[in-house]
Formats: sequence, C-alpha cells, structure tokens
Amino acid sequence: MNGLATTTISLHQVRLDDGFWSNYADLVRNTVIPYQWGALNDDIPDAERSYAIHNFKVAAGEQDGEFGGMVFQDSDLAKWLEAVSYSLATHRDPQLERIADETISLIVRAQQPDGYLNTYYTIKEPSKRWTNIYECHELYCAGHMIEAAVAYYQATGKRQLLDAMCRFVDYIDEVFGQNPNQIKGYPGHQEIELALVKLYQVTGEPRYLRLSQYFIDERGKAPSFFLEEWESRGRQSHWHAGTTVKPDLTYNQSHQPVREQDTAVGHAVRAVYMYTAMADLARLTGDEELYRACLRLWENITTKQMYITGGIGSTHHGEAFSYAYDLPNDTIYAETCASIGLIFFAQRMLQIEAKSEYADVIERALYNLVVGSMSLDGTCYFYVNPLEVVPEASAKSPEKFHVKAERQKWFGCSCCPPNVARLIASLGQYIYAVNENTVFTNLFIGSHLSVKVGGDDVELHQESNLPWSGEVRLQVALQAPKRFTLALRVPAWCNREALLKVNGVPVSVEERVDNGYVKIYRTWCDEDVVEWILPMIPELVQANPKVRANAGKVAIVRGPLVYCLEQVDNGENLGAVSLAPDVKLEEKFNANLFGGIVEVYADAYRDDELSWGNALYRPLTQNSQAVPVRAIPYYLWGNRGLGEMLVWIRCR
Amino acid sequence: MNGLATTTISLHQVRLDDGFWSNYADLVRNTVIPYQWGALNDDIPDAERSYAIHNFKVAAGEQDGEFGGMVFQDSDLAKWLEAVSYSLATHRDPQLERIADETISLIVRAQQPDGYLNTYYTIKEPSKRWTNIYECHELYCAGHMIEAAVAYYQATGKRQLLDAMCRFVDYIDEVFGQNPNQIKGYPGHQEIELALVKLYQVTGEPRYLRLSQYFIDERGKAPSFFLEEWESRGRQSHWHAGTTVKPDLTYNQSHQPVREQDTAVGHAVRAVYMYTAMADLARLTGDEELYRACLRLWENITTKQMYITGGIGSTHHGEAFSYAYDLPNDTIYAETCASIGLIFFAQRMLQIEAKSEYADVIERALYNLVVGSMSLDGTCYFYVNPLEVVPEASAKSPEKFHVKAERQKWFGCSCCPPNVARLIASLGQYIYAVNENTVFTNLFIGSHLSVKVGGDDVELHQESNLPWSGEVRLQVALQAPKRFTLALRVPAWCNREALLKVNGVPVSVEERVDNGYVKIYRTWCDEDVVEWILPMIPELVQANPKVRANAGKVAIVRGPLVYCLEQVDNGENLGAVSLAPDVKLEEKFNANLFGGIVEVYADAYRDDELSWGNALYRPLTQNSQAVPVRAIPYYLWGNRGLGEMLVWIRCR
Repeated sequence: MNGLATTTISLHQVRLDDGFWSNYADLVRNTVIPYQWGALNDDIPDAERSYAIHNFKVAAGEQDGEFGGMVFQDSDLAKWLEAVSYSLATHRDPQLERIADETISLIVRAQQPDGYLNTYYTIKEPSKRWTNIYECHELYCAGHMIEAAVAYYQATGKRQLLDAMCRFVDYIDEVFGQNPNQIKGYPGHQEIELALVKLYQVTGEPRYLRLSQYFIDERGKAPSFFLEEWESRGRQSHWHAGTTVKPDLTYNQSHQPVREQDTAVGHAVRAVYMYTAMADLARLTGDEELYRACLRLWENITTKQMYITGGIGSTHHGEAFSYAYDLPNDTIYAETCASIGLIFFAQRMLQIEAKSEYADVIERALYNLVVGSMSLDGTCYFYVNPLEVVPEASAKSPEKFHVKAERQKWFGCSCCPPNVARLIASLGQYIYAVNENTVFTNLFIGSHLSVKVGGDDVELHQESNLPWSGEVRLQVALQAPKRFTLALRVPAWCNREALLKVNGVPVSVEERVDNGYVKIYRTWCDEDVVEWILPMIPELVQANPKVRANAGKVAIVRGPLVYCLEQVDNGENLGAVSLAPDVKLEEKFNANLFGGIVEVYADAYRDDELSWGNALYRPLTQNSQAVPVRAIPYYLWGNRGLGEMLVWIRCR
Repeated sequence: MNGLATTTISLHQVRLDDGFWSNYADLVRNTVIPYQWGALNDDIPDAERSYAIHNFKVAAGEQDGEFGGMVFQDSDLAKWLEAVSYSLATHRDPQLERIADETISLIVRAQQPDGYLNTYYTIKEPSKRWTNIYECHELYCAGHMIEAAVAYYQATGKRQLLDAMCRFVDYIDEVFGQNPNQIKGYPGHQEIELALVKLYQVTGEPRYLRLSQYFIDERGKAPSFFLEEWESRGRQSHWHAGTTVKPDLTYNQSHQPVREQDTAVGHAVRAVYMYTAMADLARLTGDEELYRACLRLWENITTKQMYITGGIGSTHHGEAFSYAYDLPNDTIYAETCASIGLIFFAQRMLQIEAKSEYADVIERALYNLVVGSMSLDGTCYFYVNPLEVVPEASAKSPEKFHVKAERQKWFGCSCCPPNVARLIASLGQYIYAVNENTVFTNLFIGSHLSVKVGGDDVELHQESNLPWSGEVRLQVALQAPKRFTLALRVPAWCNREALLKVNGVPVSVEERVDNGYVKIYRTWCDEDVVEWILPMIPELVQANPKVRANAGKVAIVRGPLVYCLEQVDNGENLGAVSLAPDVKLEEKFNANLFGGIVEVYADAYRDDELSWGNALYRPLTQNSQAVPVRAIPYYLWGNRGLGEMLVWIRCR
C-alpha cells in the first residue's frame, strides 16, 4: 500500500442533487422504504409473507406465534433499518424516525439478557445457539444489525441500537476465539467481518477490529471448523432431511486460508462481503499480504468473471462463481446482492488506492445491474439479472426457471430489495474520496460536497448530465484560496478523449493522468469552475474471445450504459437479429419514454423465418432482411410488459 | 391409414454384410455382449457395481445378500438377454446360448409362484408390490423381460422364458384393469405396452394386445391414477425422504389421454416408448384416432424438438423434452436411450406408411447419436450426447456436470449400453420392409434379404459404401421372373439428385418418386442389378432461425453424417472459430484415422486471443486470422483423448 489511502465521506458531507440519481433516492425514500416496511409487516397483498416484524414481536414475548420465513429473516429488517438511517442522514423525517425508534426498541426487547439476538433461535431452538454456524446465519444477521446500528447512530446520534449491538458483540467475542472454552469458528455467511470494522470505526474499540481479524484469519485453516461442526451435529442439515454429504468448503470460501486465495469461488455474495472486510482490514492494519490477496481476487473477478453489466456469480447452483470466462447470458445468476457487494469491495479498494478501475466497476454495476434490478416504480425486483431473456424459456426450461422474465414483488428470501435500498440511500458515500491534499471525484453525480482538506474547508458543487451526456461541471467554494489537487476520474468508456477546462481555459489531460485520474494541482479560488467533458458515443463492444457465450457477438454501449434490445421494440426471436461490424449507431433522445432517455438505433439484419415452414434443418442459404432496431438502456428493460430481451447481439 | 402397411422383417431373413455396420455388429457380439455380461456380474474393475445377476440369485433364494442397484436393475439383464437373442438369431454361438439358457433358468427360478417377477420387491419389500407404480418400474422391468423372452424365442425357438413371461402377464392382466378388484392403473415408465404387442404377435393371444390397449387408453384419464396413488402412499417417494410435492404428470405423459396429446413432453424415453406402442396399436387395430396422435407427436418431435444428430430430450431436468426449438448444445441431455426409442417409433410409423422421412430419422440417429454414444472399442458409453463440449465446463459448471466429456465405463443407472447393444444386434430388422407387392429399401446397409413377396421367394443382395460414399448396388435373385415393385428410399440429404440405373441403363428418378421412395415396378429377373448413386458432398446446414442455440451457426454435414471439430485437430476454444458462408469444404479420405474415414477440411477464421491480455471487454475490432480446420464425423468424437468438441460453428 502506498500510504495514499483516502477517508470515507460521511453522508452528512454530501448532498445529492442529480437529474438521474435524485429520482432514485427519492423513490427509495418515498416509495421503497415505506413499501418494504409494509412487506416486513406482511401488509403487501399477494406478496410472499416476510414475518420479519412478527418474529421480533414473538421473540420479545409480545406476540404469540411461530417463527416464520428464512433462518436469516432478521437481516431483512436490519437492512431496511440501515436504509432508513441513510435516508434520515440526508433527509430528516420525524415520522420515519419515530417508526425506526420504535422498531429499534422492539429489536432491543427481543435481545436476550446475555446480549444474544436472533429471533430464529430465540423462538425455535433456544438451546441450539451456535450449533450450525455453517448454515444458520446467526453471525450474518448480527453483522447486518451492527451495520444498521452504526448507520442509525451516525444518522441520528442515537445509541440505543449501537449499545445493544456492542453488548451482542461483546458476547460474541466471548463465545468465539482461540481459547479452550471458545468456539474456534467463523461465519457460515460472511458479513459480520465488515460490520465489525464499522463498529470499530465508530466506537474506537480495538476488540471489535480484532474480532473481525480473528474471523478472517481463522477461516479456511485446517482442520476445517465446518467439517468438524458437520460431524458433531450428526451430519444433519438445516435445509434437508436426513444426513447430508460433506459440505463443499469452496461454497463459503473456507477451503483455504483467505490470504492464500487467488480465485473468486463459491457463493458470490459471501465472497465479496468477505473481500470487502479483507480490504478494510488491510487498510486499517497495513497488512500487505492481505492486500495482495485482495488485489488478486479483484483482478480475478473483474478480468475473468464479471458480466458487462457488473453482474457476478454466473451459476444458479450455489449462487456462485463458476470459472474463468464462463459468463452465460441466459442461465446466468448475477444476483443483485452480489453486485452490491462488489461495489462495497470496489469502494474499499478505492480507499486504499485511488485507481479509476475501481470506480469504473462501481459505475458499471450501479448504472446497469443495480438500478436495473428495480422496477421504475420501486416495488418490484430482480434477484437474478439476466442478459438474455426469453419468457417461454423462463417458463418452460428447467435450466432457466430461476431467470424470471418479470421483476417480482417480494421474495421469501428477500435479501435483494433492502440491499438496493440501502445502497441507493447511501450513494453519497461513493461519489468522492479525500486524502491529505486531494479531492477525488469518483463518480459523476450531481452533488454538493463539504470536506476538510489539509485542515481547511473545501466545498465542491458538481453538476452532471450522466448517463445521458458526458458534461460535468464542478465549482469550488472556498473561504480563502487553497492549494490542493482536484482529481477527476477518467472513465474507461471515454477512451481518454476527455476534454478539461479550468475556468473556461482548456487544460491538457494526457500528461496529468495518474492511476486513471486527471489530477489538477493548483491554488484554487472560490468559484473556480472545472468543466470535464466526456465524449459519449454509442459503440459496439466485444468480449474476450474466451467468453464462449459471447463469441461472435457485440453489445451496444454508450458511456456507462449497456444497451439492450427488447421484444416490444424489435419483435420476437431476438436471436435472429444481427449487426454488421461497421453498423452506424444513431443516438436519439426520446423525451416520451421513461421520462426522457437516449435510445440507440441501428440498421440490422433479421434471419428470415417465413421461408422455413416446418423445416428444422436445411442447407445454408443466406436470406436475411434489413430491419431497423431500437436499443434502450439495459437498466430499463422489462418495464413495458413481458417480452424477450437481449444484450449480446450477433455480429456478422 | 392407407392399408399399405408393411410387415416386419425377422432377423432370420436378413444377413448383414456391410463395411460399416458389420464391424459394429461384430463389436457387439465379440466385445459388448461379453463385456456387459461381466458388468452384470460385477466383474469389471473400477466400474460401478451392477448387482443385476446378484439380485436374481438373491431373489431365487440361492445367495444371501441385499438388493443392489436401482429399482429397475432387472431391466439391464433383460436388455442384455434381448441383445444376446438377436446375436444368436444371426450368429449361432453354443457357448453364449448356454450362458443365456442358464441365465433364463435363474430368472425363472426367481419368479414367484403367482407369476410375479421383480427382484427389488421380491427381496426388499415383498408386501409392497404395485404400491408405487408411479416410480418403481415393476411394469417397465416386466416389459423388458417380455421383449427378451420374445426375442429369445424367435432366435432359438426355446419357450422357457416366453412361457414364464406369459404367466407373468396373465398375472398382470388379473391385477390391472377396470374391474372393481383390479388396479385401475398403468405404467409409471411406459415400456410394457410395446412389449405386449410383441408378445401378442408371437403368441397370438388377443388378451395381450388388449392389455396393451388398456394401458394406453387408461393413461391420462381423470381423476389421475398417479395422484390417487401418491395420496394413498402418504405422499411418500421412493427417491426422496419425507413427503413430496405432487407428481408432475407431464413427466410420464399421463397429464391427458394419450390420443389427445399433440406435443412431446416429459421424460423422453418414456415418451417414445409409448409412442412406439401407440403406433403398433394403431396399425394392428386400425385405430385412426390413435394414428393421428402418432402423426402429430412425430411431427412435433422431428420438426421442433430434434437435434441434428437425432438426439431428443433437451433438458437434464427430468431427462425431458422442453419446448419447441429449445435445443441447447451444451446443457443438452439427448439420452442415448431416447434416440433408440425414437428409432423404434420411426420404424413403427414406417410400417404404417412407407415414407422416407421416417427412415431419414432412423438413419440420422443411427449414424450419429447411436454409434457415437459408444467408444470405438465398445467398452465406454455416453448417456448424454452433447453437440458442444468444453471439458472445463463439464468439470466446473453445475449446469454441465451431467455432460460428460468422456465416455464412461458403466453407469449405476445403466440403461443405455445394453440398449445400444440390442439395437445394433437387431439392425437387420430396420433395413427393409415388405408388403404385398413391394420391397422397400429403407437403409443403405450391405446385406442379404430373403423374403416372400406375393407368395414368391425374392432375394436381394445389397452392397453399400455408406456412410463414406453414396454408391449402392442391389442385385435381385429369383427362381423365376416376377413382377413387383422395388422401392428405394431417396435420402433427404441427397437433395433428390440421385442417379438410378437398372441393368446399367439410366432410369429417370423424378417421376417415380412417391412418399420419398423411388419405385421401380417391373418384371424382375434373376441377377437384375440396380445401381442407386446418391451424391454425397460436404455442405453447410443451418437450423431454423427459431432455434436460438444455433442462431448464426452452421453444421458441416456430408451424406448421413454430421461432422464436428475437435480440439485435438483444431486447438482449444473452438468458440473462436468461424466459417464464411461460401467456404469451400474439401473432403479427404484418411486411411490412417479410425481405420479409414472421410475428413472435411475448410479455411476458417479464428478470433485473435493474443491481443486481449487481461481485458474482458473492449470496443469491437475485427481481428481474426485465417486458419485451416479439420472436421471429423461426429460419431467418432472423444476417441482421441479429452478435449473440446463442437458441431455448430459460427458463420460470419
């Protein structure tokens, strides 16, 4: 590590003011958070029951009933509360805060005298705590509740949940560890590791950091804790009746010590949550070996296992990474939560070293997969985010049953919707980063920043037209002139053809680029203006030829947005459409679609189907017709009814 | 039906003498049958245990031990015995016949006093007969044993097994039926329906035909027998612990009355075995409605759900048909047994009406999938027959674990190897068909036929160079001149450009073609010679544009053979290879490969991988290199070590 680590920006320091994202933040605040509150309270008609609030009431002894939902159901409430916290940090809302306070009180009432908190075990199997850490998510739920507690404390200054979670962690710290009377274990689903880092950062308590380190360092050592645990519970499983086969340790990345890992394997969400904590620990403890593991895993994901939309985890089976260049578009998994975890990991790597590739991945995942996972009205979600959808296939092909052709209201396992909510509500944390003498602009999102740079107050007002055009304007506000570096990310998609002006005067970019950022070191004065013009033209992108699924195919990309074809615009059987490699792509602003978007038009070809009759195979004849096609941004697909969708288009 | 039904040819009437198939028949006789005998006796090192013989010995009370293997393990022995019968019909072998006789004695000793025969229930759950017909294959195993009994009787004239099976069927006929004291059920896995037709044909006992009709007609009526059975066994399953979800009736085609079905659904082997019996019954009883169902189902399979290799059943899940045009090459199932069943169905349809499309499908499946499922030495088999294989994907992608990249020695569920053996051993039955005044040549396989046509002896000697070249020569042997029609199939692959000569004199083909056969009606004399010259050139074939998996792709085909690329010839990452639509395909006989085959060479393109470095996506650049590629017949793939294989190649 180069000692240039940046510090996190708190939500109090940034105010979002963006043509694109403010709408989403408003949607989260005004629609998603209330809708999800309804879901957590089982008030949404026709949606699967959540039981989340119900469970806490039963655990608190205030309601009769059985535990309902998944063993990790508590985490839905925690993620919702975290989203509420971020929302309150940027927008005061006494009524919402009152609901949150009451909910926190309920949570605390469900906490056991020794600090333990988990409604599943409290209600259902109180004597079985910590007996199936491999499968039963106690530490995972704890982690999410810690994150909620930290966020709520940061937003409101209120300590009730924070103190409760400190008591819980103090108890966990007694239960787990190297001493003979402790469980020498670690989470079955990683999450608490990154949460403990946050708890350490707000409390300053080094035991919390050490507990995170312990979980990370113990993981994957031989003999395997999980195999021993499996034996000691008689090879039983929470999920299946009868005895089960030996756990596959790659599934939760416990197959080898984490600092020796160099390939992203297993359940993708578990993986990226863990890598996030690894990067946190590497930064906070200066652990170079751990950092090198992070670098290897980052490279493995982003150069071999990432979809063009920022999706990761290509197989449904185990919701997992599969292997290098295996990126099927139609049997895909690409869980929403996994890309959110990838954004966390990228943010931590960016904190260690401001390198544009990390922010490129954040931008890719945000503008494509994450917003695309949510319907425009914020009430329906994709869990799986395909790049090719044929509704008939989703309905009839068992390989594709998991690939829903329509966003769903709420899931029995509903990790994704509240995860989207908390990410968008905290988006302000991702736009900037600051160190001793530099303000980094990672994302081009309209916003107001107030930070200290080298002890002085610096304000920055950013205006941005992304993702529709690449004009970015930054205005500095200072009480007195100040010498510091303003670093602007050069997005990979602009091919370094960006134009820079400072106070209207063009400034050469090339020589100032360092680690993917153009760095302007000068004495800044109040009202100085930087214009950062990023050319944005639609273009065809291809995948590495080792990606079998995309051989001979191209995707239409414009700026940060990946485009797609939809049946509603282009008819059915999109597999019959092809593009010439030299096709002219025309962009057109359409004010009447989705509140105004840039569409891309092209003259394409369509294989003739009419001449086939009943034939299934015949000697090759070249008969395709010229057809115009219309592409829309991928994130908007599926908002105009059920139909086919396609990102990777055949290239002739 | 048009009353032109042909009769079956018995194996005593045909002697195979073919450059291609005689080798396979010899292999089955000399290697496969002895090898499988070893497997059935658990004598093959490193192979999964079969337990088949063991089970019969235990059931006969002659050996201690538990039942081993699958619930339908008896059928492996039955299929082996059927293959042995066909082999004995064409090649006397006293030693093999002695083994078969002893085995039959053992089988009969395992039969229960009331005629019941099934080692699983006899050994394990004697009180549970007929309680789980949905899952437990009692009638399926009975069907295979009936087929063996009929074949052995036809081959040797020995009645021991035939009589035993008649006793078994008499008992089944008492157990199943419409009367109040009978089970109003039908097989969970269809098979016995077609076997009962065979039993009827050799015994003349109409009850056997009626029992087959009963099973066919009762199937799929409401209320569902299988749902009632599932309820009455407490929703328990043979295969899973705990209660199970409601059976999916499409799985075994009992979702609606069979004569109302028009789409091939569910488990492919069950489906085609049933369709075979339906066609048999339609022909023997003149049931037009049933015949129309057969026609619809045939059309559905062959125009919407069949691979170019003759494979059917595209999904692993339920080993089943999925939906129209869903023919993935890499997650494919295409079980060997399903294509064998398709050949049965085609043969029965051909018996009803001599139409070349039925024989085209038989030829397609035989020369590609069926022989391809077996290793050249006859000891290893594919159960799943992919059209695209990447060994890394088979090893690492859960979607492709079932797609083995190498033929396997023997399967725990080993239906396919003995099925291949019995088909090849009985190949003589498929070459010709005869009716009142016509001898049909369906397949071009060197052979000697002796039949009665209109009461007179007719002999036909066929010489054929297929699949390597299309010269076919037929010589008639007659005691006296005779007026009859010789009908020769016009294969779809020769595009009607076939040349016909009778005694050296060209005869025009076009005007004589009827239902895909060229028909030569004349007074034939002894030693008359017909030359039938089928042009065979390599060509590119495309799939209907609705087949998403093959969009923009072509297959190389020459005569009846589908070709493929293998890694051993063309390097790895075959997805990077593409062909120009006007590519020149050059054929070359290679005497040194696999005993002499026709290879196809082409100038292709290969996407450049070197320039990519670590990049996963980048703007489109056209950089592919010209590379020569070598294609070999698909059926030979995987005989030169582990590597990639590809049938459908990208077309530029």
